[in-house]
Amino acid sequence: MTLKLHCFGESGHSYKAALTLELGPLDWEPVHVDFFNGVARSAEFRSGVNEMGEAPVLVDGETHISQSGVIQSYLTEKTGKFGGETPEEDREILRWILWDNHKLSSNTGVLRFMMNFLSPQHRSDDVIAFLTGRQKAALQILETHLTQRDWMVGRSVTNADLTCCGYLFYEEPFGFTRADWPAIDRWLNRIADLPGWKHPYDLMRPAYPDKA
Amino acid sequence: MTLKLHCFGESGHSYKAALTLELGPLDWEPVHVDFFNGVARSAEFRSGVNEMGEAPVLVDGETHISQSGVIQSYLTEKTGKFGGETPEEDREILRWILWDNHKLSSNTGVLRFMMNFLSPQHRSDDVIAFLTGRQKAALQILETHLTQRDWMVGRSVTNADLTCCGYLFYEEPFGFTRADWPAIDRWLNRIADLPGWKHPYDLMRPAYPDKA
Repeated sequence: MTLKLHCFGESGHSYKAALTLELGPLDWEPVHVDFFNGVARSAEFRSGVNEMGEAPVLVDGETHISQSGVIQSYLTEKTGKFGGETPEEDREILRWILWDNHKLSSNTGVLRFMMNFLSPQHRSDDVIAFLTGRQKAALQILETHLTQRDWMVGRSVTNADLTCCGYLFYEEPFGFTRADWPAIDRWLNRIADLPGWKHPYDLMRPAYPDKA
Repeated sequence: MTLKLHCFGESGHSYKAALTLELGPLDWEPVHVDFFNGVARSAEFRSGVNEMGEAPVLVDGETHISQSGVIQSYLTEKTGKFGGETPEEDREILRWILWDNHKLSSNTGVLRFMMNFLSPQHRSDDVIAFLTGRQKAALQILETHLTQRDWMVGRSVTNADLTCCGYLFYEEPFGFTRADWPAIDRWLNRIADLPGWKHPYDLMRPAYPDKA
């Protein structure tokens, strides 16, 4: 049965799930979420798809799963790929998934939203500066970690890589320039060289009016 | 062997781990992190304890584990408590752990820090308003979820409860008044009624100079 992913192109959290599906490779198709018209926050979406009002949501028959990190773990159970080789590696992968959701993709996602998709009168320079500082601190931890290793955990690509890269392939400006972070830059090239890799906008249709 | 937890009283992320240890009950002791003097971000802490520069960190012999959600999962393997009764419940618990770290405790922790522990000249009204809005959206999801159930997942207390309550027992002002959220208020009372429950400052020494 074809897996369905409620998602939209601008969502790096959706991209983590979409990329994990695509690299599986698993039989899947995107279900477009009209995010900028408020669909994810609607009562219908909350009651029928996800009470958290968020994308992505994976639908596998009767099973609905949200939060990209849970979707990634579920897909690893299906494919046997992108998990650790030992219990220690599994814990380390979960550690980076949590860190990414707490410190990297969270701040980067909101910052990129504010700088590109929010109307200028709702932007705050103070909030952008605050989020930029938090993003920079997270990127420095990622850069340091990747300076002496090819992949986040173990000897090959895992869900730790596929979560941390969630927002880092987008070209819209959000205070991240690959040339400033050489270890991250090389690691992103390694991910993009994986067989079957695709850019977020090639996996999921954008929802922002100018791009859709 | 006594488990050690690098932690400090003001850290709700530390509290999630400390409370899971205490309710286990497991033989553990806190190792005080002098957070407000920058210890967690020092080169020594990063190289010797946690490259992420954060508390809590659990030390179990040679094993070091950071990120409260990973510590909680590790302790559940030890005690057999606070996990799900089925694989579906396990996924649901992980979903709320990720959501809490991404949407609730993350915003609440920073907001509380800004409003109580940051010198006034570094505070920004715009950032406080931004974080307050994000906290309110997360609290509304929690309130709705708890309106028709006693515990976050399944029939009794799990790690999903012990993560989401991380910052909600603190008395310092951070835009959360229990009376405004009746379902959350009743649920916090249920948690506080668990045998062995303790307030964060009774489990871990505060690090802020006025409180230490």
